[in-house]
Amino acid sequence: MVAFLSARDVAQAVNRLGAKAFWPRLVDYLREDFKAWSAFDKSPRFASHSPGGVIELMPAGDSRTFAFKYVNGHPGNTQLCLQTVVAFGALADVATGYPIFLSDMTLATALRTAATSALAASHLARPESRTMALIGLGAQSEFQAHAFHAILGVDRLRIFDIDPEAFEKFERNMAGSGVALTRCDSARDAARGADIVTTVTADKRRATILTADMVAPGAHVNGVGGDCPGKTELARDLLLRSEIFVEYAPQTRIEGDIQQLPPDHPVTELHDVLAGRRSGRTSPDAITIFDSVGFAIEDFSVLRLLRDLARETGVGSEIELIAAPVNPKDLFSLLRPESAPAVRREAARQGH
Amino acid sequence: MVAFLSARDVAQAVNRLGAKAFWPRLVDYLREDFKAWSAFDKSPRFASHSPGGVIELMPAGDSRTFAFKYVNGHPGNTQLCLQTVVAFGALADVATGYPIFLSDMTLATALRTAATSALAASHLARPESRTMALIGLGAQSEFQAHAFHAILGVDRLRIFDIDPEAFEKFERNMAGSGVALTRCDSARDAARGADIVTTVTADKRRATILTADMVAPGAHVNGVGGDCPGKTELARDLLLRSEIFVEYAPQTRIEGDIQQLPPDHPVTELHDVLAGRRSGRTSPDAITIFDSVGFAIEDFSVLRLLRDLARETGVGSEIELIAAPVNPKDLFSLLRPESAPAVRREAARQGH
Repeated sequence: MVAFLSARDVAQAVNRLGAKAFWPRLVDYLREDFKAWSAFDKSPRFASHSPGGVIELMPAGDSRTFAFKYVNGHPGNTQLCLQTVVAFGALADVATGYPIFLSDMTLATALRTAATSALAASHLARPESRTMALIGLGAQSEFQAHAFHAILGVDRLRIFDIDPEAFEKFERNMAGSGVALTRCDSARDAARGADIVTTVTADKRRATILTADMVAPGAHVNGVGGDCPGKTELARDLLLRSEIFVEYAPQTRIEGDIQQLPPDHPVTELHDVLAGRRSGRTSPDAITIFDSVGFAIEDFSVLRLLRDLARETGVGSEIELIAAPVNPKDLFSLLRPESAPAVRREAARQGH
Repeated sequence: MVAFLSARDVAQAVNRLGAKAFWPRLVDYLREDFKAWSAFDKSPRFASHSPGGVIELMPAGDSRTFAFKYVNGHPGNTQLCLQTVVAFGALADVATGYPIFLSDMTLATALRTAATSALAASHLARPESRTMALIGLGAQSEFQAHAFHAILGVDRLRIFDIDPEAFEKFERNMAGSGVALTRCDSARDAARGADIVTTVTADKRRATILTADMVAPGAHVNGVGGDCPGKTELARDLLLRSEIFVEYAPQTRIEGDIQQLPPDHPVTELHDVLAGRRSGRTSPDAITIFDSVGFAIEDFSVLRLLRDLARETGVGSEIELIAAPVNPKDLFSLLRPESAPAVRREAARQGH
């Protein structure tokens, strides 16, 4: 039997632990896996493109555990009242190849994306950062807000979206969080005076949400929405005057905001900062950018945590994902369930 | 919700349809997909190797449906009383990227492998073939026997395995099938006088189970066990004097028995025979070989059939594999299930 968490179960596991405990724990799992960077098989993802979008299989694993995520990206889904991105994933035991855990990952991907942003910011933003601009109030926005509140103590948000309804949804989801919200009229207005600027817009094209003149010296930019070829948020001039940090350079140069820069433009990989091999921000006045695109190791981390939470909290169920014949060499016996007693009688009669 | 079939459900669906109806139906689905060969995205599988074995993700799809299979291969698992190969898979809707069906594929892989062998033999073996040698009585053997009985009317089997217990298991699983079984002392003995010779041994090395002098003119060889680099069953001399048919030449040249031959040795792809573009056997005296390695399209076919059987027979269950927030832009609402009524009250009070 394989442990299974539905999206509802994931939510229940998170809520049972409580946001205060959950976010630091997820960041710990992420930090641990990022620090073990060289132990991971960093295979490229498999992508199947179609007119409506893309379906991807993202594998990740170390010597003990293999993980993969199924995830799509279909921008037109909102017109069908469907999500643009849904995902599920599994963990397997490398020693035997048996799957051990299956989970929804729509919610889990949102959680790990926000936790990775917060982990990066905890090393890159100035320590006294408490005010964050949040530009784009879509599906990922509240996750970012809660993660930054839990990990960095960000308690003032300057929020903006082009859709007025998005403000209401966001405010509803932040009610009771202890975070003060200020509605802003534009991205420029939101960024004003912010210690951290998070861009998490959904427009699938080369957009310019943030330019160099909108960002104060010493700010940290958490660029989340520019995450695939042709989709960017940060102006080239902002990138050129900033210190840029990425998850995995070969992938980010294709998918991230730095797709606008020459392929040899210097960037620092986050794992090198976490492991102390490279420094984070070099001065209080520097602008740092985390050009986030999402990496398979993050899926590995969140799946690991969810599997542990399933065990600890008892949330979830078990499903018979793979066949389990009594005799592993006798798979066909599964097709004859009704014959099993007869077989035993016959064997007894023949003296076996 | 996503339809889900466990291995038990797969067995139940097959049994509810009955073997007589099931095997021809699976062969029909396979034939249909093989004939639509050019419509398929034939991406290479992803493989993660470790000291104990391999874990693979095998994608396949056409313009409407995407499929993938998770499958391992761990020869040492039998010592742990585990299966060497387990698998599960999913279908997704290409238009939206949403997964629609999840299933055990350990049993399904065994079914599709045998049905593909029978499909190939129905085009390659002499029409009057009724006697088959079955060399190797492991997990796949009964599936081959039942498929060849249902599709070609094979009703006499000459069986051999190096393990005496395998005979008993095989005979138990064939009881009541209407197929006459003859125990043989060796592979050579089994092949004697056989119209079809099926090799489905498990030894993971360059073995020589069948040599040219063991196979009569006019026989069809169904080589199933030689299916990965370094694992072969058929002697080079037998390959050289036979007409060779494969699923997909680029893959079979690496994984199949023809890995022993030069890369330009002529072979015919099965889909070309099914579609009438190439001929099958050229004379009643020729030896034909189907060098089977298993191809992703076959997983696609069996998943399609199982999805349809789940609908038709009502077997299986539904699982909440992916998140389904009421508002697709409000994923975070899933983390606040208890707050939903409060939100509605608040909205009413504010006159929204």
